[in-house]
Amino acid sequence: MSRRERVIGVVGLGYVGLAYALGFSMYGFRVRGVDIDGERVKSIENGLVNGFGGEALLKVIQNGSLKVSTSYEVLEDADVVFIVTNTPTKPDGLQDLSQVVSALESLAGVWRKTHFNYRVIVLKSTVLPGTTRALAEYARRELGLPIPDRVGFAHNPEFLRADRALEDVLRPSRVVVGGIDERSSIYIVDLFREFYRRVGYEPPIYTVSPEEAELVKYASNVFLALKTVYGNLIGLLCRQIDNCDAWRVMSIVGLDPRIGRSHILPGMPYGGPCLVKDTLAFGRFMLEKTGLDFVKHIHDYNELLIEKVVEHLDSELNGLQGRKIAVLGVSYKPNSPDVKDSPAIKLCEKLLSKNAIVYIHDVNREAVEKAKAILSGVKALETMEKLKEVDAVIVTLGYNEYRLIPPDVYDNALVIDMTGVVTYEKARRFYTSNTR
Amino acid sequence: MSRRERVIGVVGLGYVGLAYALGFSMYGFRVRGVDIDGERVKSIENGLVNGFGGEALLKVIQNGSLKVSTSYEVLEDADVVFIVTNTPTKPDGLQDLSQVVSALESLAGVWRKTHFNYRVIVLKSTVLPGTTRALAEYARRELGLPIPDRVGFAHNPEFLRADRALEDVLRPSRVVVGGIDERSSIYIVDLFREFYRRVGYEPPIYTVSPEEAELVKYASNVFLALKTVYGNLIGLLCRQIDNCDAWRVMSIVGLDPRIGRSHILPGMPYGGPCLVKDTLAFGRFMLEKTGLDFVKHIHDYNELLIEKVVEHLDSELNGLQGRKIAVLGVSYKPNSPDVKDSPAIKLCEKLLSKNAIVYIHDVNREAVEKAKAILSGVKALETMEKLKEVDAVIVTLGYNEYRLIPPDVYDNALVIDMTGVVTYEKARRFYTSNTR
Repeated sequence: MSRRERVIGVVGLGYVGLAYALGFSMYGFRVRGVDIDGERVKSIENGLVNGFGGEALLKVIQNGSLKVSTSYEVLEDADVVFIVTNTPTKPDGLQDLSQVVSALESLAGVWRKTHFNYRVIVLKSTVLPGTTRALAEYARRELGLPIPDRVGFAHNPEFLRADRALEDVLRPSRVVVGGIDERSSIYIVDLFREFYRRVGYEPPIYTVSPEEAELVKYASNVFLALKTVYGNLIGLLCRQIDNCDAWRVMSIVGLDPRIGRSHILPGMPYGGPCLVKDTLAFGRFMLEKTGLDFVKHIHDYNELLIEKVVEHLDSELNGLQGRKIAVLGVSYKPNSPDVKDSPAIKLCEKLLSKNAIVYIHDVNREAVEKAKAILSGVKALETMEKLKEVDAVIVTLGYNEYRLIPPDVYDNALVIDMTGVVTYEKARRFYTSNTR
Repeated sequence: MSRRERVIGVVGLGYVGLAYALGFSMYGFRVRGVDIDGERVKSIENGLVNGFGGEALLKVIQNGSLKVSTSYEVLEDADVVFIVTNTPTKPDGLQDLSQVVSALESLAGVWRKTHFNYRVIVLKSTVLPGTTRALAEYARRELGLPIPDRVGFAHNPEFLRADRALEDVLRPSRVVVGGIDERSSIYIVDLFREFYRRVGYEPPIYTVSPEEAELVKYASNVFLALKTVYGNLIGLLCRQIDNCDAWRVMSIVGLDPRIGRSHILPGMPYGGPCLVKDTLAFGRFMLEKTGLDFVKHIHDYNELLIEKVVEHLDSELNGLQGRKIAVLGVSYKPNSPDVKDSPAIKLCEKLLSKNAIVYIHDVNREAVEKAKAILSGVKALETMEKLKEVDAVIVTLGYNEYRLIPPDVYDNALVIDMTGVVTYEKARRFYTSNTR
């Protein structure tokens, strides 16, 4: 390795890619980021990205540690390139790898013109077991990259929480590196060791096969989906038993150190940018490989939960046609603008399809705007006062703002609490038997 | 309450009942225990019960704090009676409450003759939601117990690990009390507060409805069953993917603090005295109450895993007829004599039904004797040297004795490791792809 500081490339500057780009550049590495979205690149250059607290970002932009561009040319000298593009799942459970493939093509185009000794491509995107090795083979055969002699290839899954991405880059609970050969793995493990030495934090670093690295990610995410479904199914059961409140039950269950409280308290079905697509893709994969539909069922039960909520509203309101229903909380979790695969969006869609009049609200204004763009016919709830005019209110996110709404604004509406935090005494906790 | 020390009755002196009887009597309460099994009572009187380290038990027997008997007469003066009898599940998922009902009848017979102010019956046996209240009503109406005026009734689930029962009585992660009325709950919560004040340990104590207390227990156990099945299904998947070892994958997955390593490493299907019967009963209950078969599937997938092991042996040995197969480990977990619902026993049964010649071994000798009594035609493996003569060895429990068996005794046998701990290089880890 030359004595100059290593150059790290990052392709795809969503919250994951940007968090790594920012993390590495904060600790002295020269980072070059690429995103095909020119507006995203401009926002980053101006330090204007939500959740990346302007200052740190602006600093690395201004001192030149981090350069971002829409052109792959900036990756010409990269010693390592992290590919962090999206890998969406199609409705049939098949994974769409087009963004990863296109990134590899563009990278190969730039690298073909340059001379170098050894470099490594690191796929961070979530992909099904076997994909990294297949992509490496594709890049070798079809794109002419000199793999594995002069270009290494590895999978290195990310476990970032969207709202704490930088923190999770700097303080991960584990780092998993799956190189297609030993040289690739060692190269990337060395890079992480050096990075965390500078950060002053020593995470456990595991060297595994690419397939194991890929599987770790799915097995983790899908387990969290499973835990969520389990808590919600216990919740549905509580609706059918006298004197039972699922939040009380599951908060005690979660005290068992072998179980833990995370994800097990009942609430809305799981949603968001990872769990839905990963469970769907892994469900199909599991079925194909083993003939077992266990994982597929997780997705199905999750979908069923939305149906149960709609059924409940339908029955309580004696039909949904023309009913005014306010949905408080549209993103997939509090303080997030992300409405992709949000269960509240699915709820609204189903209500709209039954000709209900749907008003939406979210404390995060960006979430409301995005939801309006997706849901045709939905109305934004301008003020809480408007709740006086609706037939039903359904609280999907546990914002303090919803916990504390003065009871009188609910007026005579049916109030359904999916979160267990609403204090209004007439609110009906969804996962509670009616006798409690 | 009178100024004399309270008298605590315990009906059913299995490991749970005895652990509570011992715990309360060690800390100054007068405890009276009843078990219909005269031999058990004699063993306890002689301080000869496995896992209850003779000395503490002998001391409370000798100083009279703990008296045990086969007769309910000793419960005449009890202020509180814990009912800790078995509640087995029938194969169809229905719960057999006969032992609990019989205990209530006997208790009522004794109490009918005495005068008292207020007492409480506490059901510790695992029962489905609604059962405690139904039993209280039965005891009032059919047995003439003055419930709730002079006899309170509560459910108080136990979360003891069989091999650390006393420790879990003295240091519980939580105490859950579900009285049929406030007075019952307060009475029992006060008792526990006083007990843990003397122990010098302050567990969180939750007062809930009886139904919630009942549900907490099932929701906890069934989640652990689910976690076990999940780890094993990922294990089956690893068998179908190149370069994958499920122990490596799941030990990394378990590092996520939201998941945890307990129960998630692959191994034998879950078994033992609680998880099998509880999952079966709860599966039926869930289906009846909600129409959802999610929990029922957990049991089915667990059963399926045994089939997969048998299939594997069958295919590797070209048929099982006349094959000599050694099963190392027959109880449901290491260092336990308990073979009830042990997955290794089910495995042996299936192998025997296919006319294999089955040799069994367990480091716990009591387990071997019990297994021999259940499995007709099975042979005990007298010495490890005998392994030289078998066609296959399957290691089901992670004893050091099995980890460290000198490779030469395996000779040419196929060695299958279900535990992930065997170091013999030719052993095949069951949850690993063949290419690794």
